[in-house]
Amino acid sequence: MRRVNAGDWVTLYYGEKEAYTVRVVPGRRFHTTRGFIELDRLVGVELGSSVETNVGERFVVSRATLVEKLLSLRRFTQVIYPKDLGYMLISSGVGPGSVVVEAGTGTGFLAATLAYYVRPTGKVYTYEVRKDFYEMALENFRALGLQEFIVAKNKDVREGFDEEDVDAVMLDLPDPWSVVDKAYASLAHGGVILVFVPTLPQVERTLSALRKSGFRMVEVVEIMLRKYKAEPAELRPETVGVQHTGYIIQGRKL
Amino acid sequence: MRRVNAGDWVTLYYGEKEAYTVRVVPGRRFHTTRGFIELDRLVGVELGSSVETNVGERFVVSRATLVEKLLSLRRFTQVIYPKDLGYMLISSGVGPGSVVVEAGTGTGFLAATLAYYVRPTGKVYTYEVRKDFYEMALENFRALGLQEFIVAKNKDVREGFDEEDVDAVMLDLPDPWSVVDKAYASLAHGGVILVFVPTLPQVERTLSALRKSGFRMVEVVEIMLRKYKAEPAELRPETVGVQHTGYIIQGRKL
Amino acid sequence: MRRVNAGDWVTLYYGEKEAYTVRVVPGRRFHTTRGFIELDRLVGVELGSSVETNVGERFVVSRATLVEKLLSLRRFTQVIYPKDLGYMLISSGVGPGSVVVEAGTGTGFLAATLAYYVRPTGKVYTYEVRKDFYEMALENFRALGLQEFIVAKNKDVREGFDEEDVDAVMLDLPDPWSVVDKAYASLAHGGVILVFVPTLPQVERTLSALRKSGFRMVEVVEIMLRKYKAEPAELRPETVGVQHTGYIIQGRKL
Amino acid sequence: MRRVNAGDWVTLYYGEKEAYTVRVVPGRRFHTTRGFIELDRLVGVELGSSVETNVGERFVVSRATLVEKLLSLRRFTQVIYPKDLGYMLISSGVGPGSVVVEAGTGTGFLAATLAYYVRPTGKVYTYEVRKDFYEMALENFRALGLQEFIVAKNKDVREGFDEEDVDAVMLDLPDPWSVVDKAYASLAHGGVILVFVPTLPQVERTLSALRKSGFRMVEVVEIMLRKYKAEPAELRPETVGVQHTGYIIQGRKL
Repeated sequence: MRRVNAGDWVTLYYGEKEAYTVRVVPGRRFHTTRGFIELDRLVGVELGSSVETNVGERFVVSRATLVEKLLSLRRFTQVIYPKDLGYMLISSGVGPGSVVVEAGTGTGFLAATLAYYVRPTGKVYTYEVRKDFYEMALENFRALGLQEFIVAKNKDVREGFDEEDVDAVMLDLPDPWSVVDKAYASLAHGGVILVFVPTLPQVERTLSALRKSGFRMVEVVEIMLRKYKAEPAELRPETVGVQHTGYIIQGRKL
Repeated sequence: MRRVNAGDWVTLYYGEKEAYTVRVVPGRRFHTTRGFIELDRLVGVELGSSVETNVGERFVVSRATLVEKLLSLRRFTQVIYPKDLGYMLISSGVGPGSVVVEAGTGTGFLAATLAYYVRPTGKVYTYEVRKDFYEMALENFRALGLQEFIVAKNKDVREGFDEEDVDAVMLDLPDPWSVVDKAYASLAHGGVILVFVPTLPQVERTLSALRKSGFRMVEVVEIMLRKYKAEPAELRPETVGVQHTGYIIQGRKL
Repeated sequence: MRRVNAGDWVTLYYGEKEAYTVRVVPGRRFHTTRGFIELDRLVGVELGSSVETNVGERFVVSRATLVEKLLSLRRFTQVIYPKDLGYMLISSGVGPGSVVVEAGTGTGFLAATLAYYVRPTGKVYTYEVRKDFYEMALENFRALGLQEFIVAKNKDVREGFDEEDVDAVMLDLPDPWSVVDKAYASLAHGGVILVFVPTLPQVERTLSALRKSGFRMVEVVEIMLRKYKAEPAELRPETVGVQHTGYIIQGRKL
Repeated sequence: MRRVNAGDWVTLYYGEKEAYTVRVVPGRRFHTTRGFIELDRLVGVELGSSVETNVGERFVVSRATLVEKLLSLRRFTQVIYPKDLGYMLISSGVGPGSVVVEAGTGTGFLAATLAYYVRPTGKVYTYEVRKDFYEMALENFRALGLQEFIVAKNKDVREGFDEEDVDAVMLDLPDPWSVVDKAYASLAHGGVILVFVPTLPQVERTLSALRKSGFRMVEVVEIMLRKYKAEPAELRPETVGVQHTGYIIQGRKL
């Protein structure tokens, strides 16, 4: 039997279709379309029990998953989808103890995911040239409780990475080809570069840069996810959905 | 500058197309199509340098990635692909410290991946009814150095799981619907079930069982990966490829 | 140099993004979001020249394509998409001179397409149990000028097809399995059945019925179409799109 | 009850998995892996009955479909798949009576398909620069009985098309961008260009050329087809399959 502590992340469910994910910050009031809840009232509540809003609507209190937490963060940049994040994670082998360099930070979505997985002994170094994004990301890292695993830098990666001998470099930039050689310099032998870009001309330019910088075992993949209508008697893919996010380019320093 | 230690996993590259992944077990001899290498000779070698086989062919010595290690294991069961593993990992939120139950073990591919990510404080409990698979998996866990994070059981899951309050249950079984209620009992509130099945009638039966057992937020997805020809001037998806692995079904205990 | 005749179908273009397809019925007035045009004024106009609406906006007058005509018809039932229609056409070999049976008529979209291709010597027999759909379809066939190639029947196909020795039977029904044996009876030796259904349980039931009725060379395919952003410097699939229409099941009477 | 005539195309089936498509040319002997058949013996045979090879194996005699005929032709160039052909047909509206220009002829696969659909009053003009392909295609057109609907030319399309005011131009060339302006000149107002190319850099160059030549309503699509295992109890996409053929680019002369 687990209870909610101050600072925990919880998801409040109203039926199957409506859910809110929030960090339990004492003293704050949380607004839903069905009234508000004083977050103080959540502290000590047993997971699985329900709470009432000021207008008497009942929500079930549950632990928030990683994805729910990430998606509840303030963001003003495009995020990488779970289908792409998961593949980047597994194929890079980034896990507990890994040292990773990432750019650009944006809202911090990718850096936070990586930090979650390199815990407790690894580290994520993340670069962002825009001051406003950098500050937003810092706030997000603190909200997620991941700040100790992340070193965020407000710097232009075109000037190079400060880290050496890293396990992986991940790039989510409009012009990744301009820093591919810096990534090569920063990687340990055997290290992996992973680049995420939305358009095909970006793929072409990145491929050329990877070859020129000496990367080997270069691969390009595209991952498509279709959500199905989850009714046994009407099983079929949803009619309309996201049919493109981006391409994942991978290379090894060998 | 890193060097190879006894017990490390390395990948030996011959150009871009040929690679062998092996654990450096002193006293063993490793055979390639280009001659053999006494593994003793790899100990102390610097990563990135090259070694010669008995017939004079040179291989570059590099660290093995997670996927390379997994794919080099002895196996006689179908494995789950990185595209599916990654999505299961991210959408379950299984990470360092998580407690996961998994069945059936098979060769141990899924359990090993989960163990890699729950390190160093989490645990994977894996069930396998067949004695031969169970023993093969134990051997694979030891080879990967992941045995301390895995509790393998030679038991039939239709008799239930011994664990309670777990974060996630992952099922890769021919008849997952027969243990869905046991999974529900084993999960903590807010916990996630993830089921991987290759056929559509299996999806339909699993969906019905999930609803009956009380799971909520049920989702079905299919993930398709296309590998591209990684030449900037001829960029296009490979003509022939794997176009189906299976469906991922997800539910929450809420 | 071609000119517009009364009864022709034309498409009126306003830039690249806005287009209206209309049959030039003398005496009618056609409304757009940029004012109206008296259709009488289109008769005799040269294709490629432009006409003005009552508020002075200019549209270029062009021939309407088959798809533009079909999509401009009154419809209250789901239509089959070009990607699926085209495959059904080619893989059935239905072409000039073919005799085809089709059910249910719905708005007449599939029957009209088939009629267009069996011209001038073939025939399409189409069945519809609902009186309102049947009458709407008749009106659509006349508007398209295809009525002489179509025999529409307001009958329940569960009572069987009147035609024998036909080249192909195409079914777009909620319960195609209930008429598969009637389709078999109606087909010539070597004839083809094509069934379009949106859900997977429908595929399963149809497959069972096809086998039981004696169909051979049974195939199931799914066709996915992705539209790309047609800008050379930003080439990539559109982010959101139709990711599912239905499954095409095929069989031969051999 | 239909019978086989000399010159007809038939498909000989041995069970579900083995089939041969052949034109019944009297005096010829047709070899299968199960013995040969003197084609004279097929004349007058009822469709649906069976014939014996010289070693006593029995084949069922059936009408050949369009696709079976096309695939049985001699070919040494890549063909366009039914999924792509069908979409090109429907979205161009090419049908009975249409006048189409096509290049390069290659084996004649696309020209023959178009000729089949423009019968009996339309015409296909097809250009091929290589003499050997041109002659092979002529032979194929005659074998299919489609020669009267096709005008084949052994000419380089970079010198322009001889036809004017055509309904559609279809290009299956390595460098379509070099003739896009010639295609524009050849098309009637409202006419459609359709280009099929396998790689993405080809798409980019073709898009630029289409814009420069004045084409409007430019679209790029990709069509993916997955074949399913047609067993109701094991329904799922085939594991391995063709996952890429090419991209279809479309434009209108408006």
